[in-house]
Amino acid sequence: MTGTATRSAGLNALSATEVVQKIATGATTAEAVVRDCLARIAERDGAVKAWAFVDPALALRQARELDRGPARGPLHGVPVGIKDVIDTVDMPTQMGSPIYDGYRPRCDASCVAILRAAGAVILGKTITCEFAGVEPNVTRNPHNPAHTPGGSSSGSAAAVADFMVPVAFGTQTGGSILRPASFCGIVGYKPSFGTINRAGLKFAAESIDTIGPLTRTVADAALVTAVLVGATLPTLAWSGAAPRVGVCRTHLWSTAEPATVAAIEDAAKRLGAVGEAKLPSGFEALSEAREVFNEFERARAMAHEWHAHRDRISARLAKSIQNGMAMKWERYLASRHVVAGWRARLDALFDGFDVLLAPCVPGEAPEGLGHTGDPRMQGIWTLLHAPTITLPTHRGPKGLPVGIQLVGRIGDDEKLLAAASWVRDRLGPPR
Amino acid sequence: MTGTATRSAGLNALSATEVVQKIATGATTAEAVVRDCLARIAERDGAVKAWAFVDPALALRQARELDRGPARGPLHGVPVGIKDVIDTVDMPTQMGSPIYDGYRPRCDASCVAILRAAGAVILGKTITCEFAGVEPNVTRNPHNPAHTPGGSSSGSAAAVADFMVPVAFGTQTGGSILRPASFCGIVGYKPSFGTINRAGLKFAAESIDTIGPLTRTVADAALVTAVLVGATLPTLAWSGAAPRVGVCRTHLWSTAEPATVAAIEDAAKRLGAVGEAKLPSGFEALSEAREVFNEFERARAMAHEWHAHRDRISARLAKSIQNGMAMKWERYLASRHVVAGWRARLDALFDGFDVLLAPCVPGEAPEGLGHTGDPRMQGIWTLLHAPTITLPTHRGPKGLPVGIQLVGRIGDDEKLLAAASWVRDRLGPPR
Repeated sequence: MTGTATRSAGLNALSATEVVQKIATGATTAEAVVRDCLARIAERDGAVKAWAFVDPALALRQARELDRGPARGPLHGVPVGIKDVIDTVDMPTQMGSPIYDGYRPRCDASCVAILRAAGAVILGKTITCEFAGVEPNVTRNPHNPAHTPGGSSSGSAAAVADFMVPVAFGTQTGGSILRPASFCGIVGYKPSFGTINRAGLKFAAESIDTIGPLTRTVADAALVTAVLVGATLPTLAWSGAAPRVGVCRTHLWSTAEPATVAAIEDAAKRLGAVGEAKLPSGFEALSEAREVFNEFERARAMAHEWHAHRDRISARLAKSIQNGMAMKWERYLASRHVVAGWRARLDALFDGFDVLLAPCVPGEAPEGLGHTGDPRMQGIWTLLHAPTITLPTHRGPKGLPVGIQLVGRIGDDEKLLAAASWVRDRLGPPR
Repeated sequence: MTGTATRSAGLNALSATEVVQKIATGATTAEAVVRDCLARIAERDGAVKAWAFVDPALALRQARELDRGPARGPLHGVPVGIKDVIDTVDMPTQMGSPIYDGYRPRCDASCVAILRAAGAVILGKTITCEFAGVEPNVTRNPHNPAHTPGGSSSGSAAAVADFMVPVAFGTQTGGSILRPASFCGIVGYKPSFGTINRAGLKFAAESIDTIGPLTRTVADAALVTAVLVGATLPTLAWSGAAPRVGVCRTHLWSTAEPATVAAIEDAAKRLGAVGEAKLPSGFEALSEAREVFNEFERARAMAHEWHAHRDRISARLAKSIQNGMAMKWERYLASRHVVAGWRARLDALFDGFDVLLAPCVPGEAPEGLGHTGDPRMQGIWTLLHAPTITLPTHRGPKGLPVGIQLVGRIGDDEKLLAAASWVRDRLGPPR
């Protein structure tokens, strides 16, 4: 690894699962864990710029309160970062936009309130691209500060990758969880649409916006999600024969750089992929359909900002809203009809496969901070409501991370996570 | 009609469509329309209690600003009431709960911002049941103050029925638009799920929550919805032979009182219904599934209020949240799977029919204000994401309104509205 996001020795480098265990056995305290996370932030965030808001005193107060009481829940003492488009009652929620400077919501978002009640420490707010869109913010890739961390969950990915916090929330409308996770070399999980409740999320395109965790381990992603939905805590054990992996290169394969081609071919080989998932013709239209959904729905979601604060919206976002405002309902409705058909037929793609292996990003994180990268390889699955996860399995020519993407059937996240855990073990550390 | 919601002579009795025309031709002004609406509110709202917030000076300022400028859009000068679970930047949004006393959102909800930009006057906020649930608020039925107006869009239905405003927004998670509309004798339209953008709506159960208009005419419902989604303004003309009406009594038919039985049989006869839409066995499970969705999702959406303000939540809502909190993900997920299957098969129910005629409510609005009535006849269609509309076509033994319900195919709202317009003309004023 050429970068500086090397494993730090403190409690900040523990996974959420390890934090819970160590606090439960008395080996450490929530306060000690939070102190090490804050120390890492103090040391590194001047360079990485992952955080929109951290109040060390507030974080430590939460930790000490947990240490004084009995075990509060399955995330007792776990520090968590919250993407700054998700409401927090005790911290500003600024959406990556001057329009929301200093905004204090009246109420925690659902996912924040549930995590607090389960014992998590809300460590702070992570940097988002403007309204979770494509206009970059200030965050840098912790592996190389000249490169984008990806977006729009830029701060969440960078903070987790840089060992500032074991878990952060992201949101994905195109590729805003998986792309930054892949670029920063961590696990990014977008559950099936409708899994994590979105009350208190600022919408981009509400029919596809999905909240999901960024973590350093598959077990942590599964743990946090199980707590949020009230599921039995998963074992992640893959039972029986190896998962049947189907390779799904998609119509975007020609846009893959050598690093991604090598990552997918290597993974397919070492995972013993059993075949190729052939996409029916017409599938490529989903890339355009995602743009239709994104622009039509975002323009309506942001009607207030557009009419009342247009001068404080970036040119790039303004263009997208303008496109959406001008788009006729009839075009969007036709697109919805096409997409609903594909969602209904998606199961057929899994005939003979437990999980699909697909490219996640074209290659390593591009150089420069003016652009967060191409969302298309992630976006088709978001549009389809399918669960997807990226794992940090490979590296590119510059030594930067290149993740693979695993895709599951809609609603069968349990199998996807178990397969991901199996894949992670099988492939080992990034090559 | 025994009640007091008789047609008032002022401009407040105009439909939205009429308001737009009269202002466009110079026959009246936005200010004059708003003044008559405010006068009606001053005269009647002490008895009806439809409004949570009205600031006459603010409403008149909006109207005068419109009168000073050029035509702003297709709703120029139309006064609108906004259910108090939908955010408004210049008025409090109090959710029918003391937890949100005096709360001022930072931003207009999408539907409010789009209406403002189209020239509507945001007249005020209408009373909602606590968080759009079942705990009643103070609103009375304008036809008889001893009876419930229905809920949870109680104030929106009562205000429109009582000629205080031509249009108000409601939201429906079970039957919260159609039930109060039916009880108050007006038009209540719940579009297909995903039609009107929900940014700025306080969620109850996000996978089924739907925003829709309450109006006195089908044309107004179609006009407002077209503006919100950016569709071509509809003509509502039914072309060709009469719509093929299928009667769908549903598994809840045995709960229909004589007034509803008479309304449906009379409508079926006079509309020349061509047959009966037979529900496949298992359909009755949807009533329980709606409860599962409602309790599971609401508990998560209200996690903050539950953990931080439990003492200010009504006993009835607290019980529902408690049920939802205790409900396992696995049960909800199984229910989602069943419902997804029914949604996919819903089209088959329309074989040979353009629209279904179904019971909307068990009968007239029940006496008393302690209960807003039974949501089940409306709730099954909400759960299925189908568009539905109630029309004020009949009366019960006490002279109170009893509406019928028309149901369309998912996504084919245009046909449903055209059929509804045809039905309204064919059936004429309530009998």
